[in-house]
Amino acid sequence: MSLSTLASRIGFLISHTFTGRALIPTRFSSTKMALESYNFGPYKIDSREVFYNTNLSYALVNLRPVVPGHVLVCPRREVKRFVDLTVDETSDLWLTAQKVGSRLESYHKATSLTLTIQDGPQAGQTVPHVHIHILPRKGGDFENNDDIYDALDEKEKELKQKLDLDKERKDRSLEEMAQEAEEYRKLFL
Amino acid sequence: MSLSTLASRIGFLISHTFTGRALIPTRFSSTKMALESYNFGPYKIDSREVFYNTNLSYALVNLRPVVPGHVLVCPRREVKRFVDLTVDETSDLWLTAQKVGSRLESYHKATSLTLTIQDGPQAGQTVPHVHIHILPRKGGDFENNDDIYDALDEKEKELKQKLDLDKERKDRSLEEMAQEAEEYRKLFL
Repeated sequence: MSLSTLASRIGFLISHTFTGRALIPTRFSSTKMALESYNFGPYKIDSREVFYNTNLSYALVNLRPVVPGHVLVCPRREVKRFVDLTVDETSDLWLTAQKVGSRLESYHKATSLTLTIQDGPQAGQTVPHVHIHILPRKGGDFENNDDIYDALDEKEKELKQKLDLDKERKDRSLEEMAQEAEEYRKLFL
Repeated sequence: MSLSTLASRIGFLISHTFTGRALIPTRFSSTKMALESYNFGPYKIDSREVFYNTNLSYALVNLRPVVPGHVLVCPRREVKRFVDLTVDETSDLWLTAQKVGSRLESYHKATSLTLTIQDGPQAGQTVPHVHIHILPRKGGDFENNDDIYDALDEKEKELKQKLDLDKERKDRSLEEMAQEAEEYRKLFL
């Protein structure tokens, strides 16, 4: 299945409701989140893309989600391999993923979750910073269950290219992602 | 890629060195492991297939591994969904997976790991008991990285069929699996 077919099947559209970036900082003026910066490997993540965090982990929306609610959970510390995490980081990362997965599954009216770490380049990791992919799943979302991994793998490659090359982010704007993150943030209040 | 092509490409053969099952129990007579029983959903797992355990989790070899070292890590308590685990179970499960993954990656001279939970039927889960798939990865093990998930998905279906239907286990004998588990057990001494 081609990615374009996939994208049209999934029909994942986020409406543009932000009229400009000037509005956005005020939405976060009372939160700690807006003041923090997040690293994802060599890349800086805008705090508006982050919808949940703990002292050790954070959850962010995706530049190009494979399904609605496809998000990433990362340790705050830049660590390449899963084995490099401390005991506390490992526990916190997965407790965060558990909480995030559960909330997003309900929010998107899904019935299952795919949770996966591509841990190292030979497993398909392109950004050298541990990250859990969380994908809410529904019956019939992919023709075959495993098609989701084809899409995931393509997205990993594209993500890196986009982070490297596409400063303007033609696929999803920061405003789109910020809006999605804003919605998800409410699930953790 | 067909499974038969896959299997021949991977060339995963475990030599038969046990001559009979009577030998096996004596190998475990001094360990706690032989006396324990493990549930995997509705199925009983022979303790000889289990190569590592904690108070809350256990690791077992696979009836039909997709790659060498493809193993499963489960909570001892029979729980269907990841969100149903307690905080302690969640932490222990992933700390166990981290340890097991690291040792098996080295043992199989691999360079990466795929770690995944198919959490719920719409994500491809067939046995209703949380389990992490751990797959040591090497460059070129699959033509495309994501082909491993096609294989994984087929194996999940086959596993259930086999557990349901094939008491004689034509694919890999208990002896074969017990031998592999015996090897892996040494990694945790």
